[in-house]
This record gives sequence, structure tokens and C-alpha cells, in this order.
Amino acid sequence: MNSFGSLFRVHIYGESHGSGIGVLIDGVPAGIKLTIDDFLLDLSKRKPGSLGTTPRKESDLPKFVSGIFNEFTTGSPINIFFENNNTDSKVYSDFKSHPRPGHADFAATQKYSGFNDIRGGGHFSGRLTLALVAAGVVAKKILKNTSFVSQIEKIGVLNKEEFHDNLNEYLSKVQTSGDSLGGTISLRVKNIPIGLGEPFFNSVESTISSIVFSIPGVKGIEFGSGFEGVELLGSKFNDCFIDKNGRTASNNNGGINGGISNGNDIFLKIAVKPTSSIFKSQDTFNFKDNCVQPLTINGRHDVAFVLRVPIVLENSVAIALADLYLQNKKIHF
Amino acid sequence: MNSFGSLFRVHIYGESHGSGIGVLIDGVPAGIKLTIDDFLLDLSKRKPGSLGTTPRKESDLPKFVSGIFNEFTTGSPINIFFENNNTDSKVYSDFKSHPRPGHADFAATQKYSGFNDIRGGGHFSGRLTLALVAAGVVAKKILKNTSFVSQIEKIGVLNKEEFHDNLNEYLSKVQTSGDSLGGTISLRVKNIPIGLGEPFFNSVESTISSIVFSIPGVKGIEFGSGFEGVELLGSKFNDCFIDKNGRTASNNNGGINGGISNGNDIFLKIAVKPTSSIFKSQDTFNFKDNCVQPLTINGRHDVAFVLRVPIVLENSVAIALADLYLQNKKIHF
Amino acid sequence: MNSFGSLFRVHIYGESHGSGIGVLIDGVPAGIKLTIDDFLLDLSKRKPGSLGTTPRKESDLPKFVSGIFNEFTTGSPINIFFENNNTDSKVYSDFKSHPRPGHADFAATQKYSGFNDIRGGGHFSGRLTLALVAAGVVAKKILKNTSFVSQIEKIGVLNKEEFHDNLNEYLSKVQTSGDSLGGTISLRVKNIPIGLGEPFFNSVESTISSIVFSIPGVKGIEFGSGFEGVELLGSKFNDCFIDKNGRTASNNNGGINGGISNGNDIFLKIAVKPTSSIFKSQDTFNFKDNCVQPLTINGRHDVAFVLRVPIVLENSVAIALADLYLQNKKIHF
Amino acid sequence: MNSFGSLFRVHIYGESHGSGIGVLIDGVPAGIKLTIDDFLLDLSKRKPGSLGTTPRKESDLPKFVSGIFNEFTTGSPINIFFENNNTDSKVYSDFKSHPRPGHADFAATQKYSGFNDIRGGGHFSGRLTLALVAAGVVAKKILKNTSFVSQIEKIGVLNKEEFHDNLNEYLSKVQTSGDSLGGTISLRVKNIPIGLGEPFFNSVESTISSIVFSIPGVKGIEFGSGFEGVELLGSKFNDCFIDKNGRTASNNNGGINGGISNGNDIFLKIAVKPTSSIFKSQDTFNFKDNCVQPLTINGRHDVAFVLRVPIVLENSVAIALADLYLQNKKIHF
Repeated sequence: MNSFGSLFRVHIYGESHGSGIGVLIDGVPAGIKLTIDDFLLDLSKRKPGSLGTTPRKESDLPKFVSGIFNEFTTGSPINIFFENNNTDSKVYSDFKSHPRPGHADFAATQKYSGFNDIRGGGHFSGRLTLALVAAGVVAKKILKNTSFVSQIEKIGVLNKEEFHDNLNEYLSKVQTSGDSLGGTISLRVKNIPIGLGEPFFNSVESTISSIVFSIPGVKGIEFGSGFEGVELLGSKFNDCFIDKNGRTASNNNGGINGGISNGNDIFLKIAVKPTSSIFKSQDTFNFKDNCVQPLTINGRHDVAFVLRVPIVLENSVAIALADLYLQNKKIHF
Repeated sequence: MNSFGSLFRVHIYGESHGSGIGVLIDGVPAGIKLTIDDFLLDLSKRKPGSLGTTPRKESDLPKFVSGIFNEFTTGSPINIFFENNNTDSKVYSDFKSHPRPGHADFAATQKYSGFNDIRGGGHFSGRLTLALVAAGVVAKKILKNTSFVSQIEKIGVLNKEEFHDNLNEYLSKVQTSGDSLGGTISLRVKNIPIGLGEPFFNSVESTISSIVFSIPGVKGIEFGSGFEGVELLGSKFNDCFIDKNGRTASNNNGGINGGISNGNDIFLKIAVKPTSSIFKSQDTFNFKDNCVQPLTINGRHDVAFVLRVPIVLENSVAIALADLYLQNKKIHF
Repeated sequence: MNSFGSLFRVHIYGESHGSGIGVLIDGVPAGIKLTIDDFLLDLSKRKPGSLGTTPRKESDLPKFVSGIFNEFTTGSPINIFFENNNTDSKVYSDFKSHPRPGHADFAATQKYSGFNDIRGGGHFSGRLTLALVAAGVVAKKILKNTSFVSQIEKIGVLNKEEFHDNLNEYLSKVQTSGDSLGGTISLRVKNIPIGLGEPFFNSVESTISSIVFSIPGVKGIEFGSGFEGVELLGSKFNDCFIDKNGRTASNNNGGINGGISNGNDIFLKIAVKPTSSIFKSQDTFNFKDNCVQPLTINGRHDVAFVLRVPIVLENSVAIALADLYLQNKKIHF
Repeated sequence: MNSFGSLFRVHIYGESHGSGIGVLIDGVPAGIKLTIDDFLLDLSKRKPGSLGTTPRKESDLPKFVSGIFNEFTTGSPINIFFENNNTDSKVYSDFKSHPRPGHADFAATQKYSGFNDIRGGGHFSGRLTLALVAAGVVAKKILKNTSFVSQIEKIGVLNKEEFHDNLNEYLSKVQTSGDSLGGTISLRVKNIPIGLGEPFFNSVESTISSIVFSIPGVKGIEFGSGFEGVELLGSKFNDCFIDKNGRTASNNNGGINGGISNGNDIFLKIAVKPTSSIFKSQDTFNFKDNCVQPLTINGRHDVAFVLRVPIVLENSVAIALADLYLQNKKIHF
């Protein structure tokens, strides 16, 4: 399915080298002010440009196709479209028979009997995250008072404390060697209402993780103290309440109890794998020639696409929380 | 929502100290042989009994309420019910005003305006995982050739290599001190068809993580080499194909590329937090008295409920994969 | 699917001659008072007893399995169960090979490869409407100020104006001849809020008709002046507004414009076919013997089950409107 | 919601006087040949042009935005877009305060707090049916062997037998008088597989009626002999089987038993109300001036838009049946 959400419903479409990509958002309340300007900051954060990111340049200006009238949402579905302008599909022709390791080439070709559009990764391209960022801008309008602070925690073996001195050099070295890097990103969501989450199945963690694993390349997520927290004793792990607003002394649970937000910061961390496309030659099976062969991937790609993921993470989580927020509207009897 | 799945649809209901808990499974194909005996092994794996688990004893015999006739599924919804027999609700009365740290007490009382059934955790109890185990038994019938191997990797600070010599002593010591432990569990899913997963949003990782975070106490999940894998260079991380079946030399992606199963083992690991209920006194806010007060939790609980989670993890993942399996049935044109 | 609704979600289960039938209702707000007594009036309206209805007697007392605590809804899923006590399955054995005309026997046996439970119609029995009536009782609690007035308009060839003098005689005559009757029912829903309905696809008419056609035997539905209204000129059909509350001079649209309630009474009518089970012998194909043969249906059945449908119609429409009501809760910006 | 379907999922967007309207179709199997030419015949059937239809002229050429590559479906979501070229929004400015009888103006303005795009009816315009026709073209590709035969049965008071001699004169007369007409349409679906339909709630009738009532102006639907059939005795109404393929001697059930297709023709009829927009002055409430006032509607509209509905009906039913067809794919154990 290309749909996410129960009340704030996001449907994405498009391919890396087709006419463009976009997002259809249904369930947005009428009367929210929404202009092109509202999108520019978040979109710019996702853009390449810095060291370690792809040289593919796209203007990425959103086009409102439907659902917005006189700068306000109308209550009808909002279609936001981004044109593809800078595509170069020459290099993708052979990847169905000689699939790139780490990419969807092999699995998608099997699943779709070879009819998938493989150019630039097609519907599996990281370019689709543009749709998540755009939908997240709308989601953040619904979560008026909530703020999102993301941070890259680690690139390859380098921790954030070491970035200042060593990151550029590290990125350059890896780029020169034709290789790539992954990393981890943390996200803190502040000022979230108490009571979001619809357990049993639609816990805050379930809903957030479900959309976060849609971001290409994410391979892990943890809330609160996560994998490290399991070493704590219960008496240390438990977050005791300290005031009538439900604030807790520690936050090992990441702001979520029983799948429901408890009003403390939601805190989570994700693992992003190294960019799959590398210039270095790789020995991998050629399904037409029926043998292992060296594969060289040309084209344009990020050395460490993790650098562009923080805003994608923020906005994906915003989508999840906006949906839970609308679901939580209470009726009093 | 208390519902999971698109085609294999699981709805759970019940409370820890109500008449019982159960699961309604819709979308199960007709003609699958299903008897009470099919459930006994998996249910026994979830039962307490060993050191470190709760003394609450329940027979946990499933009762087929609907959807099964003459030992075969009929195509109509299957309702499987488990009675609660051994309940003791005395100790839960005060937890709405003096909520237990780590539990849903505070967040659920806020969300449901105090109408939630708090006895034994109510609908938030670990007892609800019985429903997941039962539904997973049916899911495994659909995934005929697939096998599931789970393993506890870590309890508290102890790694699995150290269990043989030290685990019982460790559990006893923590139990005596009135404290509790968490842990990590790995799962390997073998012989899974190529092509499961419905990206963009219903990737294998999204679908699995969504249900796994419904298991009370899970705080992290990673696929393949997960958080550790981000330190690898792309050339090392990428899983090169080595034969015409798509087998890969390494499995850092955990058997999933672009959100789609590639036919290699799906491998994942989860973090389970320490049991929230501990006998040790905890200083935490009393919302009636409007001050921090010591809280002592009596009753019966697991020192390390992680010990009972492996079969819950297995069967939850089976539910997710059964749903993706049914979605992947192809039509040829 | 055995599920209806987006926010007020109804899942039904059970078979006519199994252990019982029931309904799982998810999404019910916490804090609604709900006791067994609340169900008795509506359930009694569905009961047989009068001339023209089946002699099968069931107590039909609801059992609350989950989701209700101390007489209030808890916010967790509500499971309401009805036991089957008075079953007699002898007569159903041959209907898979010699299917009853008008019944699901043939189509269901094909669909479920013969594994369907055919006893008493199994999951296709009119007994399942008990679940709709029960769920409707809860739905009506959500639609606090709305009232439902249903009326049988026609039985066979007899219009309601003629019932007083001729109905009993007509029913007796048809019963004696081993035959059966259908009819039409109207429903007026009063005091419904303006703005319900989620077009494009979830119009009021779409949502109501979707659930109403789940009632076994319904073959037609029309809103407002329906099929007769097509003969009117637009100037006559259009319902002009006459005051600031949106009241209209006529109601040919049945209280719905553009798929959205306009605050006037929702008015609709349905067609219910004659009871399929008749005592009269019917010549119909025997799939085992591969020829047309006379079929005699014994057992117990309604001469005119339409007599028991009004409360089922009311409560089904209440379910649809409760779901639309919860969806329509606005957020102001 | 602007979404329909479980596996063949249709999402529509757009407004009458915005940049255009379109449809996003998710769940379409990969490998279906699909070109612009495939759409032209059905789209031409919906076009105005004949007597009694609007003078608004649009080219209505579909644009494939995503999901189609080298003339085949890829398995990714298909976005088909139609530009609006011939719009004239001058006349719509006052309809929020002086709403047109029969239209969504009043109800939508209330529901969306006045933020709805009212130009040309906005998202409530009959122009949106273009999306249904386009999606139906794809649906028909899935239902390879099934054929659809629709027929206008009645226009105003004129039955189809009288069309040849009197229709043009009738339309001209009504047009001259500034008034409008409704009508009824029948649809016969031939060669439909046995076993479609997912009762309890997703019966064939429920699924079809749900989408058909999304077509603006539809006010009634009946299957088989419908409202007239209720006058028949059961012995006459029941459709006896006459051969091993399940063919029946009569078809009062319209090819559906117990909510499941029985392999005989699905037959249904709908009621379409008279065009709401008429040139004739109407006395109706002005909410700004707080009194009843004459309203004159200028602009362009169909005298009898029912003339353009047959292909919309066909293709809407095709969408419903394609979804049920994909849901019915069996797994054998």
C-alpha cells in the first residue's frame, strides 16, 4: 500500500525518473492556511548540496494541484506535486539482470515480474521522501504547539562530538575511495499532548515505526533508552512522576507508556544504513549470464544520504502524530 | 485501533481481570485444518512457570467460538477465547491516583477520562499477548514452509553465552531485591518467499515493527545488522548476490531490500524493557494527594517478563508476514 | 470483510448453529453508560413471536465479554455475545449438493470450497442481524439526540393502509400454502446534525446503503423520493431552503445534499425480498445427482421475515451515522 | 474519505474550477498493458455534446503522471490527471450565502466552515465522475472477460420505448422552460465469476451501492427485481438452479445470493435525480439577508445529466467488482 493513516491519510505516488512525484493528503481539516512559502524551509533541509550529498539538482518547488483555495485548505484532498527535471536514465538499463546489492532491484523485479520502473530506483528512490517532507509540513500545521528537534548522532564510526574536527575529511576520504557511509539520527518531539496513541495495535511506537521504516535505508528504531536501556534494573528504568502534569524524573520510556504519550518528550533514535550505490566495483550475481560478475555503478549519489534524512524523519513522525492527534479528539458524555 | 492487517485481519479484545481475553481473526482462507492441539505448544511457551516469571496460573485453553467447523476453517471470522480464572483485583484500586511508573496507568487514565479498567492493567496487560500467540498459530498455518527461530540474546547485563553459569543466580538475586530485568531477543525467519512487502508504506520492516511495538514493553527493533551496521562502509554492508536464487554472501539487510523480502532469512532483534512492576518502593507523584509519595506494588509479576516474549515475538511476526503473504498473491496477465 | 466503519468499528462473528453469535465494537468513546437493560427493548423488537415469524425461540440475552466496567464503556473494544441455545441442525446436511434457491448455499459452497458451515445458513443466517441490533444500541448512545422511526410500508401486495383489515388473513393464507412474502420498510431519522458524510466516497447514502445491504434479504434502497422522484421536473424536485436552520420546503433529497446531511430528516426506503425458505416443493438442480429435482425445505422459518427487519434497519443506519458523526468532529484553527 | 477499495484502491482529487481533477489508483497488478487509447472510448461516452447536455467543452485527455512505464503498469500507484481548461467562475460567488437548492452548497459550507471551493461545485462537481470513468477503464482490464451493458430506462416521465419518437422534443421543451429532468438507468454485468463478495459487510450489493451512491445525483439502487419484486411470493421470487454451472431459471436476485455472486448476470437499476441547476428562478433562503429570495442560476449545465451517467455507472461498478475480484483470489491448502 502507498497509503498511511486513518484520519490524516497520506498517499504517495511517482518515480525518480518519471514526470514527477507527489503526495495526496486526505482528511486535512478545512481552514488551515497553507502557502508555497510554508514548504520552503523544510524542503531546503532535504536538498543536497553539502559535501557527501548527490550532485543531482532539482528545484523541488511544490505545485498545489487540488484542495487549497485562496491560501486555505478546503477540506478536500490536497495533491502536491513535484516535477522531475534533472533525470539521466542511461545507466539503469542493466540492473534488472545484474541487480545492485542493497537496492530493491532484485526483490522488486521478482515481485513485479520485471515490469517495475527501475530508472533511478523508480518508486523505490529516496526521491520519494520529498512527498513525506511535504506531507509533514501539513501535519505540523495540525500539531500547532509541538516542536521537532532532530540531530545526526553518528556518521559511520564518527560520533557527533567528533564532527567538527573530522567529518569533512572523513567524507572526502570515503568519497574518494568510491565508498559510502551510514549513521544514526535522534529526534526529540516536545510539547506533545497527553493521550495520543490507540493501543492495542496503534500504539505511538507502532504508528511512528511503521512510517519511519518507510524511509528508504532505515534499519532500526528505538524509543527512550532503547537497546541500552535493557541493561538497567527496573527500579532505575522506571520513570517516576514528579508533578501534577505527569512530568517524569527520567525518560527511559521515551515519553510513551502503554503505547500512549504521557506528555514528556517523545525521544527516539534511528539507524540509517550506508548508501547502497557506490562507485567501487562489487562482485555480484548476473542473472542473465548466470554467474558472479563485477558491477560498477555510475550515476550520481550521496556518499552519506543519512545527512539528508533528519528532516525526513521529523516530518514522517509529524505525519504519524497528526494522525494520532486527530484520532484522539474526545467526545464527552 | 485494536485491529491489525489488511487481508489477514486480527482484532483483539479483553482485559486482564475481566471475563477473559480473545482474538477475532477475519480473512482466514477456508479449508485450513485447525484443532485445539495446534495451539498447545505455542501457548505453553508463553506460560509462566520458570524462575523469573509470575506465579499467576491460568489454564489458557483456547475456546473456538466461531469460524471453525468439523476441524476446518470455514472462511468466516474465527473467534478464539481464553477465560480468566485466576484473578485478584484487590491491589489495583489506587493506581489511578497514584500511578505505577512505567505502566499505562497515568496515560490511560488521562486518555479515557478515568473510565479505563485498571485492574491488572486491564486492556494494557501483558495477558493480551495470549491473543497474539493464538493468532500467530493460525498465521503460521498460512506460511506453511516458513520457520521461526527466536532466541533470548541478553537478560539485563548478561549475554546469552553467560546464561548457563549465571542466569538462575542473577534472576534470584534481582527477585530477592524486589527489582526486575529486561533483555533482548533475536528472531530468524527462514524460508520466506521472495517478494513480500508492499512499499511504499507497507514495507516488511514497517509491517513487522508495527505489530512488534504492540507487544507491551518492546522499546526497540532492528533488522539485519541494525544499529551496529551503521559503522560499516557501504562496500562491506551491501549484501552481494551469489546465486540465481538470490542468496547473498552477507545479510546486513536482514533479508529485506527496498522493503521487500529478498528470500534470505529475515533477521531482527528487539529490546524489551525491565518489568515495570517491582516490589521495591518507588517515590512517585500521587495525583490525589498532590505530592510525591512512596509507592509499593504488591501482586504477582514476572521478574523478567522478557523470558516469555520469544513466542510472542515469533507469532506476531508470523501475523505480519501472513498478511503480506496474502497481499502478494499475484495475478498474471 | 466482517468489519464496518472507520472510527466506530463493528466486527461481527458467529454462525446460526455454532456456540453463538456476537459483535466486537471498537472505537467507542470511554464513559458511556451501558447496561444489559439498554439492549432489551431493541432486542425484543427483533424477536419472533407474532404471526408470520419463525417458531425458533432464543432468549437472546446479551453477555458483555469485554470493554464495559462498572456499567460504563472503558474505551477498549466491547465484545457482546449471544448464545445459541435452540438449534436443530438435522435438516441442513444436503444443501451443499442440493442448494436452496434464494439462499447463499450454492454461492458460498463455491466460494469457500465446501468448507462453509451450512447449518442454519451458518454465517449467512438472519440470526447475525442480532449483532447489528446490539451494535446499533451502542451507536444510538453516541447519537444522543437523534431519533429513528421505522415503518413497514408494504407486505407482499398489501399496503400499510390495508394491514388493519387484511394482514393476518393474508399471512395465514400464505403460510398455509407453504409460501412466503417480502415487503418494504421506510425509515425517518430525525434531528441529525448538519454536515455528516465524507464525500467523495463516504457520502451519507454510500455509508448507509453499504451497511443496509448487509442485512440479508435487502434488494433495494432509495433516499427521499427515490425512484418515483425521477419523474419530477428539477424545479419541483429541488428542495428550497425556507429558514436560517436550513429547513427545506420539500424533502425529495431525503435530507442529503452532495452526500452530506443538510439537517432535515433523513428519509429512506428499502425493499426486502420474500423469505427464501419455503415449505412448498421447488424444482432445482442437484449438483451431486446432476439433474433438476424437487427440493423440500423443512425446519423453522419466517413466512415474512420483513416483519422483524424494522429494528435491524434502524440500528444499522444508526451504526453508519455514528461512524460519520465521529468522523465529523471538527478542529478549529 | 476520498478512497474506495481494499486491494484495488481508488483515490480521487480535484475541483471543477481548479487546475484539474484526477485519480490515484493503488494496488493495480504489474504488467497490464495500458495506453491513452484504452481510455478514449469510455471517456467519449461521458462527454457532453448531445441535446440535453452542457455546452462546457473539455478535451478530457488523460495524462499518465505515474505508475505506467513503456505502456505497462509497473505495480506502483497510477496517477491519471485531467486538466481543466474551460472554466468560468464568475457566477459562483454568492452561492455560499444564497445556496442553490439540491446542490451541496449549504451542507458543504456548513461542514467546511465556508472554506470549501464552491466554484462550479468544487469537489462536489459532476466533473469528478471523470475520475471514476478513468479508474473503471483500469478495473475493466482486471475483469478481462466481464462485459457491461448499461441502458437508460427512463427520462423524466418517458420510458425507453418512447424515446425514439418523443425524447428530443421533450428535452427541448424542458430546456426552453429553464427546467431539468432525471431518469433511471439499468446495468447488466455479464460473465462475472462465481464467488465474488465478502459478506458479512462487503456483500456485492454493499460494495456496488457504496460506490454508486458516490456518483452525484444517484438517489436509489435496486438489484434484480428490486422494489417490484417484493410483491412476488417466495415460490415465484426464488431463482431455481437449472444446470451444473449454477444458471438459474429466473434472476430476481440479480445474480447475487447471500451477498455473493452466483455466476448469473448481475442486474441493477439506479434512480438519478433531475439536474439541480436550472435557469428558472427559485425562491430559497438567503442566509446573508436572512430571508427567502428568488435565485437565478446562470452558467452552463445539463438539462438531463442522467444522459451522461451510463458509462459512469458501468465503470463505477467495474471498480467495485475489480476490488472484490482481487479479494477473492483463493489459496488452496
